[in-house]
Amino acid sequence: MLRETCEISINKERLIHDLNAISRIGLGDHGAVTRLVFSVKELRARQLLIHLMNHAGLKVHVDRIGNIFGRLNGANSKAPAVLAGSHLDTVVQNGKFDGPVGVIGALEAVRTLRENNVVFAHPLEVVCFVGEESSRFGFSTLGSSLVAGEVKLEDLANAVDAHGTKLEDVLSSMGIYRHNLTSLKRDPVSIKAYLELHIEQGPILEAKAKKIGLVTSIAAPTRLKVVFAGQADHSGTTPMEMRKDALVAAARFISYVEDVCLEFSHMDKGRVVGTVGALKIEPGVINAIPGKAELSVDIRSISAESKDQVAKLIIEQAREIAQRRNISVDILPIRNELPVALDEGLLLLIEEGCKRKGIPYEIMPSGAGHDAMQMAKITRAGMIFVPSRRGISHNPLEWTEPEDICLGSQLLMETIVRLANED
Amino acid sequence: MLRETCEISINKERLIHDLNAISRIGLGDHGAVTRLVFSVKELRARQLLIHLMNHAGLKVHVDRIGNIFGRLNGANSKAPAVLAGSHLDTVVQNGKFDGPVGVIGALEAVRTLRENNVVFAHPLEVVCFVGEESSRFGFSTLGSSLVAGEVKLEDLANAVDAHGTKLEDVLSSMGIYRHNLTSLKRDPVSIKAYLELHIEQGPILEAKAKKIGLVTSIAAPTRLKVVFAGQADHSGTTPMEMRKDALVAAARFISYVEDVCLEFSHMDKGRVVGTVGALKIEPGVINAIPGKAELSVDIRSISAESKDQVAKLIIEQAREIAQRRNISVDILPIRNELPVALDEGLLLLIEEGCKRKGIPYEIMPSGAGHDAMQMAKITRAGMIFVPSRRGISHNPLEWTEPEDICLGSQLLMETIVRLANED
Repeated sequence: MLRETCEISINKERLIHDLNAISRIGLGDHGAVTRLVFSVKELRARQLLIHLMNHAGLKVHVDRIGNIFGRLNGANSKAPAVLAGSHLDTVVQNGKFDGPVGVIGALEAVRTLRENNVVFAHPLEVVCFVGEESSRFGFSTLGSSLVAGEVKLEDLANAVDAHGTKLEDVLSSMGIYRHNLTSLKRDPVSIKAYLELHIEQGPILEAKAKKIGLVTSIAAPTRLKVVFAGQADHSGTTPMEMRKDALVAAARFISYVEDVCLEFSHMDKGRVVGTVGALKIEPGVINAIPGKAELSVDIRSISAESKDQVAKLIIEQAREIAQRRNISVDILPIRNELPVALDEGLLLLIEEGCKRKGIPYEIMPSGAGHDAMQMAKITRAGMIFVPSRRGISHNPLEWTEPEDICLGSQLLMETIVRLANED
Repeated sequence: MLRETCEISINKERLIHDLNAISRIGLGDHGAVTRLVFSVKELRARQLLIHLMNHAGLKVHVDRIGNIFGRLNGANSKAPAVLAGSHLDTVVQNGKFDGPVGVIGALEAVRTLRENNVVFAHPLEVVCFVGEESSRFGFSTLGSSLVAGEVKLEDLANAVDAHGTKLEDVLSSMGIYRHNLTSLKRDPVSIKAYLELHIEQGPILEAKAKKIGLVTSIAAPTRLKVVFAGQADHSGTTPMEMRKDALVAAARFISYVEDVCLEFSHMDKGRVVGTVGALKIEPGVINAIPGKAELSVDIRSISAESKDQVAKLIIEQAREIAQRRNISVDILPIRNELPVALDEGLLLLIEEGCKRKGIPYEIMPSGAGHDAMQMAKITRAGMIFVPSRRGISHNPLEWTEPEDICLGSQLLMETIVRLANED
């Protein structure tokens, strides 16, 4: 007998229990969790997920790169499936929520439906994508990009981690070969929609006292590497006016990045954010003028136009600073991605769910990238955000209240059923 | 029979030969020379010097810490000695001139006098001080400080190298014990003067086309460690106006250090130089806002007053920046040394030598620290600089023309004789 899904509740205790079980894999000091893609830790987390899926009665399929699909058929097993999931890999010293909340949240939704004998037409699939984070190989959303058919196989050939290990060697050690990977592209006809529950990783929901974020679009990064090369000299003997200090050049540049991004920070100017996150100098000792400064710039916006405009200004400024100081500068574009719009219909469907239950929600863009960004290229994609305490993420201090995670999973479940019963 | 010393020439070929022999000890890729204090390489260089001194007929004495004195008595062996020398230890990846030029230059001067049977009254001593560079233990002019009685033995107890090896353990492994070291202080009555030939390590002589620098005083560093602590956040999800970016704070600070030092860079304002040479950020990845930035400041001047004034302004600015950005800052003084004036009479004596031979010279302060700085505390001290190509030092590209080194050694020899015949 079909019950209204809003009368059914997910099992909160089980959801939090399984989330904690995942987070104990790769747990280090101070609650930091590290599961870099293809590390032993990450493989163990995937294995635990397969166990949980089997236990929940899902039919598990693992594709060649390691993406996991746990399927539960509905009345019509030939119909396109409703997919919901996220990833289990992490950055170095992460918290326990970025990724797992979406995977275990979807698992909990689907197993609750099964236990309650809820009737639905379309098949459901809980998904765990491999390698969403770029931390190890500088390559983000690896698994979902392959599923979306968006990976250039040549790019994989160049990816290398901080220890000099090639992604390609890691793959072949696991019996995965590049030429086999094109077949991972999933036929769009087999998918009805993709939903992703995720922590916000930003401070907006908390600041506005909202419980749920409905994501309109995903900002995309433009990334640059900027290298100022001046001259390393003795800090005591080189007069100020004869210096070619690469760090001072970098400092002037970093200040400019902040200035110009503040100017473009409002929503009507594309809500641009710009960050210099990495900076290395040489020789880097107290008594030497830095001769070299190498830094990264990460610019994001929901407007491709604003992002391009800011990137152009920043590049011009780097050149001006170098010229004025008679030093050299190299600017290497790393990537330039387009912002991705998510599906409006899905957003309205999730919004209805919030309104029905009186959940305070915010319609907002996502500043961070997600697997949904790739899936949007082959299907309708929607995202549900839950609040991050103090907006902290990619950090052991990352925290989302268990209540909020459960609310997100519940909303996800209700959305899944509605979709799975749509024509 | 006494000849005028300006008729006698040092043996240029031998000087350069011995300098090269020293530089082959610790020679690495691209001509880099590394002889950290108390390393096997540095000990071998000292041993070679002892051999050269013996060979030149000097009477060698090695004190407890390893300072080497090669003595040649004159007519009056009880009179105070004229000392000349420098050091043989280096920073990591140095060139071959910083230090050895002064040791081998002095050796060449003294052995030339002996060979030519030049008559003089006071004893002469060629000196090699241990551990002038701070690179290994963060402790500079170790040997000369002990000779000048300027070392606090407690400080030695705290010194540790990058591998965690304690200076004290290194010493005791060589049979050197801390409580024995106070006896190294040399009775000022036994010394008439100290002369040091050294490369400039700065660009001034080259820029002004001068061959010799006569050093008036040695600038002393004030060193600070400044740590800005903000909050590490996700680079995509944190709006510009909600950030606590420690690197942007550091960037504004680094720009200020340049601005204020440029303002105080003229000779009449104390010729202040200020450098941020080391900078580390955390987490230091492309997609995270830096939550912590730790940097070093090195301020030098020949005027203690100007230096203090600039240090005060810099500290105030660090606090202001932190306050304005609502982040915290810690400022840790590392050291604050007084500039050291060298002996005016010695400078005039060397200047006479230059004038007599028509050598283009420059009267100038030293931005770098030297053993002469310590020796000035117990005797009259003077320094002779020779040009550094492009001002580069503490770098494998360090270069001084052999001709210039020979000219410096020749001038040193003539000065030594004059001093050794003074009453």
